[in-house]
Amino acid sequence: MPHTLRELAERFALGLKGDPALTIHGVCGLSPGRPGCLSYLADPKFHKQLAGTAASAVVLTAPAAEAYAGAALIAPNPLLAFARIAALFDAYRDFPADSVHSTAVIGAGVRLGPGSCIGPHAVIADGAEIGDGCFIGPNCVVGQRAQLGAGVRLASQVFVWHGVRIGARCNIEPGAVIGGRGFGNAPTPEGWVEVPQLGSVVIGDDVEIGANTCIDRGALEDTIIEAGVKIDNLVQIAHNVHIGAHTAIAACVGVAGSTRIGERCLVGGACGISGHIEIGDGVILAAGSMVTKSLPGPGHYAGPLPAALARDWRRDIARLRRLEHLESRVRALEELKR
Amino acid sequence: MPHTLRELAERFALGLKGDPALTIHGVCGLSPGRPGCLSYLADPKFHKQLAGTAASAVVLTAPAAEAYAGAALIAPNPLLAFARIAALFDAYRDFPADSVHSTAVIGAGVRLGPGSCIGPHAVIADGAEIGDGCFIGPNCVVGQRAQLGAGVRLASQVFVWHGVRIGARCNIEPGAVIGGRGFGNAPTPEGWVEVPQLGSVVIGDDVEIGANTCIDRGALEDTIIEAGVKIDNLVQIAHNVHIGAHTAIAACVGVAGSTRIGERCLVGGACGISGHIEIGDGVILAAGSMVTKSLPGPGHYAGPLPAALARDWRRDIARLRRLEHLESRVRALEELKR
Amino acid sequence: MPHTLRELAERFALGLKGDPALTIHGVCGLSPGRPGCLSYLADPKFHKQLAGTAASAVVLTAPAAEAYAGAALIAPNPLLAFARIAALFDAYRDFPADSVHSTAVIGAGVRLGPGSCIGPHAVIADGAEIGDGCFIGPNCVVGQRAQLGAGVRLASQVFVWHGVRIGARCNIEPGAVIGGRGFGNAPTPEGWVEVPQLGSVVIGDDVEIGANTCIDRGALEDTIIEAGVKIDNLVQIAHNVHIGAHTAIAACVGVAGSTRIGERCLVGGACGISGHIEIGDGVILAAGSMVTKSLPGPGHYAGPLPAALARDWRRDIARLRRLEHLESRVRALEELKR
Repeated sequence: MPHTLRELAERFALGLKGDPALTIHGVCGLSPGRPGCLSYLADPKFHKQLAGTAASAVVLTAPAAEAYAGAALIAPNPLLAFARIAALFDAYRDFPADSVHSTAVIGAGVRLGPGSCIGPHAVIADGAEIGDGCFIGPNCVVGQRAQLGAGVRLASQVFVWHGVRIGARCNIEPGAVIGGRGFGNAPTPEGWVEVPQLGSVVIGDDVEIGANTCIDRGALEDTIIEAGVKIDNLVQIAHNVHIGAHTAIAACVGVAGSTRIGERCLVGGACGISGHIEIGDGVILAAGSMVTKSLPGPGHYAGPLPAALARDWRRDIARLRRLEHLESRVRALEELKR
Repeated sequence: MPHTLRELAERFALGLKGDPALTIHGVCGLSPGRPGCLSYLADPKFHKQLAGTAASAVVLTAPAAEAYAGAALIAPNPLLAFARIAALFDAYRDFPADSVHSTAVIGAGVRLGPGSCIGPHAVIADGAEIGDGCFIGPNCVVGQRAQLGAGVRLASQVFVWHGVRIGARCNIEPGAVIGGRGFGNAPTPEGWVEVPQLGSVVIGDDVEIGANTCIDRGALEDTIIEAGVKIDNLVQIAHNVHIGAHTAIAACVGVAGSTRIGERCLVGGACGISGHIEIGDGVILAAGSMVTKSLPGPGHYAGPLPAALARDWRRDIARLRRLEHLESRVRALEELKR
Repeated sequence: MPHTLRELAERFALGLKGDPALTIHGVCGLSPGRPGCLSYLADPKFHKQLAGTAASAVVLTAPAAEAYAGAALIAPNPLLAFARIAALFDAYRDFPADSVHSTAVIGAGVRLGPGSCIGPHAVIADGAEIGDGCFIGPNCVVGQRAQLGAGVRLASQVFVWHGVRIGARCNIEPGAVIGGRGFGNAPTPEGWVEVPQLGSVVIGDDVEIGANTCIDRGALEDTIIEAGVKIDNLVQIAHNVHIGAHTAIAACVGVAGSTRIGERCLVGGACGISGHIEIGDGVILAAGSMVTKSLPGPGHYAGPLPAALARDWRRDIARLRRLEHLESRVRALEELKR
C-alpha cells in the first residue's frame, strides 16, 4: 500500500522537505535507487551517492537535508526512521491469525494463545504454552512444557526443546536449535560418560536468533540470554553462558560454556570466546578475535593476523619464529657495549 | 549396472588400454582398490599407489598410462572423466518422476513442473514455481512465490524462503537456509530496532550449496550467487553479498554483508571475510585467513598463525609482545654508534 | 522420584558421610546450591564454594570430604558418580516404547526394532534398519538402507542419509546432517563438474554428535567415526575423515577431507584442521588453532593470537610487519662490530 510523504512524516514525527503529496510505493537503496521509492542516508561515507540517487525521497539528518535539493524526510536517526517506514512495506510476516494447520500435531494440555498461527507439520509437545499472536512456522518443533511469550515468531524448522522459556516478540530464524544438550561428558579410563544436562534456556523479550544457531541448555542451572540481544546465523552458545541485554553477536561466533558476556557488547563475526571467563559491559570485539581471558569493559579489542599475500605472510611467520635468535643477537651486541 | 571398458571409452571419448571386454561393476579409490572396479589417478603425488592397486582399471593421463601395465582409460583430465563415469554408478539421486507425496502440502497457485518429485512432509507455499524435473526432498519448505529452475534438487529439510530465485540444476544439501532474514538492526538508546530485510536471494545455474549453510536475503537489493558457484557446509553468506561465477567456498567460511567476491576465486575453509570490501577475480585464500580489507585479484593470500607446540607458541606470542622493547634496545645500540 | 543418600550410595558403590536417610529430590550446582538437592565438587578450584553451598549433600573425593562438615557421597571420580546419579533425575529422554506416530512415513522393507519410538513427521526410507529401543524424534529423516544400532537417539530434525551406519547408543542432536554429499568437484575450463560421492559414513558405538553438525559421506571409501567419539555443535567433518576412538571435538571445528585424527585427542573449539594430514593419538589442540601440517601425538598444541586491546594489537601487527627492517638494522650493527 502506498503512502504520501505527509502521511509518513506525521505517523513517525519526522520533518518534511519537498512535495507532501509525493507518493511512496516502496523502499530502495541509495545507489542507484528506484523512482517511486524512499531511501535513506545514515552513514556519511555514502553521502556522495546522494546526488545521483533515483529514489524519489530520502530519509536523512537535518544538516544533510540542507545540502540536498530533493524530497526528504528529516530525522535525528535516519536508519531508525527508515526501519520503521520499511516495516510498512514488509508483507511477508503477515499470517492468518487463529489458525492451526491440519497437519500440525498438538500435544495434550497445550495452551495456544489467541491470534496464533501454527503452520504445516509443526509439532507442539505436551504442556507447551504458546503466547498470544505467535507464529509457529512449518516443521517447527516446540518441546514439552516450553513457554513462548506473546508475538514470538519461529520462522521454520526451528527446534525449541523441553522447558525452554522464550520472552515476548522474539524472532527465531530457520534451523535454530534452542535447548539442545550441553556438551558435558565426564572422562573415565574407559572413555567419556555423558553428564545429563538438566538446566534449561531462558530468553528475554525482543531477542533475535539467527538461522542454524545453537543455544545449548544448561548443565544444572540455565543458559540465559537477556532482553534485546541480537544473535546472527551459525552461532554457538554453550551451556550456562549468560549474555547481557542488548548485546549483538555477528555470525559464526562460538562462546564456550559458563562464560558471561556483559550488556551492550558488540561481538564481531567468527570470534571465539573461551569458557568460564567474563567479558565486561560495552566491550567491542573485532571480527575473528580469539578471547581466552576475561576482558574488562568498556573497550575495543582485536585479534587475528589480517590476511596478506602468501609470500609476505610466510616471511612474517618465519621472522616471528626467528625472534628468539634476533633477541639473542641483540643481547650479544649489548654485552659487547659494557 | 555394469559397463565394459569399451562402452565407457566410447561413451566418454576416452583412450583405452587393455581388454575392451573387461567389465566394470563400480568405482573405488586407488589404494587399496577393489577388483571389478575402476579407479583414477589425477594428482601425481599418488603415483606410487598405482603399482599396488587392486582396481581392475584406472583412468589416467597418456604419460601415466605408458608407465602402467594394467587396464586403463586415458583422458587429458582423469578426474573429470572419472566423475562422469562414477555418476553412472550413483543410484541415490533417482526419484519417481511426477510424484507428490500424500503428506506434502501444496499451496494455492503453485506451478509444479513435469517430472518433479515432492517428498513427504514437504511444504510448497502459495505461488511458488517448481521447474521441470525438480526433486524436493522430505521436510523441505519452499516459500511464497519462490522460483526453482529445472532440475533443482533440495535434498531434505532445506528452507527456501519467499521470493528466492534459484537457477537450473542447483543442488542444495540438507538443512541449508536460503533467504533468511539479513542481520540488520538500527541502534537506539533503548536498544536495537529491527531493519526489515526486503531484498531477496538470486542464485544462478549449477550452484551447489552445502548442508546447514545460510544465505541471507538482502536488506533492500538482492544477495547474488552467480552461476557455477560451489559452497560447502556451514558457510554464512550475509545480506547483499555478491559472489562471482565459478567461485568455490570451502566449509565454515563467513562472508559479512555487502562484500563482493570475484569470479573463479578459491576460498579455503574457515576464512572470515569482512563486510563492504571487494575481493578480485581469481583470488586464492588459504584456509583460516581473516580478510579485513579489499584484495586485488588474482593472487594467493594467507593468514593465520599455524598451530605449534603450546610451549613454543607461548614463547612466540610473548616475543611478539616484547617487540616494542626489542626495537627500543636496537635503537639504543644505534645511537651509541653515532 | 526422590532417593535417599543410602540408596544412592549402595546403587553406585559410593562412600557415605552424614544421615543415610536424607532424601535427595534433584541435583544442583554448588553455588548457590538448592536445599533438597545433591551437588558435586570435582575441580579443586571450586573448593571455596563448598562451605557456602545450600545443597543438602555433595559428591566429592575422600580428602575433600574430610574437610567438609555436611552430608556427602564419596567417590574417586566425583563428576562420574554425579553424572550417573543425575541421570536418575533426567526424565526427558523417556519415550513410549513400540510407538509409531500416525504422521510418520515408513518405507517398504523397513525393520523397526522392538521398543523403538518413531515421532511425528519422521520419515524412514525403504530398507532402513532401526535397532531395538531407538528414539527417532519429530521430523527426522533416515535414508534408504541406513542402519541404526540399538538404543540410538535422533533428537529431532536429524538427517541420516542413505546407507549410513550408526552404532549402538549413539546420541545425535537436532539438525545434524550425517551423510550429506562430500564437497568434491573437478575443475574444468568451463567450471566445476560434480564428482559423485559414493562412499558412506560409518559411526561406532556410543558416539555423540552435536546440533547442526555435518558429517559428509566419503567420495569412494567411507568417512569413519570410531566408538566413543564426542562431537559438539556446528562441527564440519569432511569426506573421508577418520576420527579415532574417544576423541572429543568442541564446537565450531572444521576438519577438511581425508584427514586422520588419532584416538583420545581433545580438539578445542573453533579449530581448523587442513585436509590430507595426520594428527597423532592423544593430541590436545587449544581452541582456535589452525593446523596445516601433520602433528605427532601425544602433545599439547596451540595457535591463535589472543585478543588484545585494539590499539596494542595494531602496534603488535605493525611491529611484526616491521621485523624485516629490524633484522636488517641488527645485521648492520653486527657488521660494524667486526
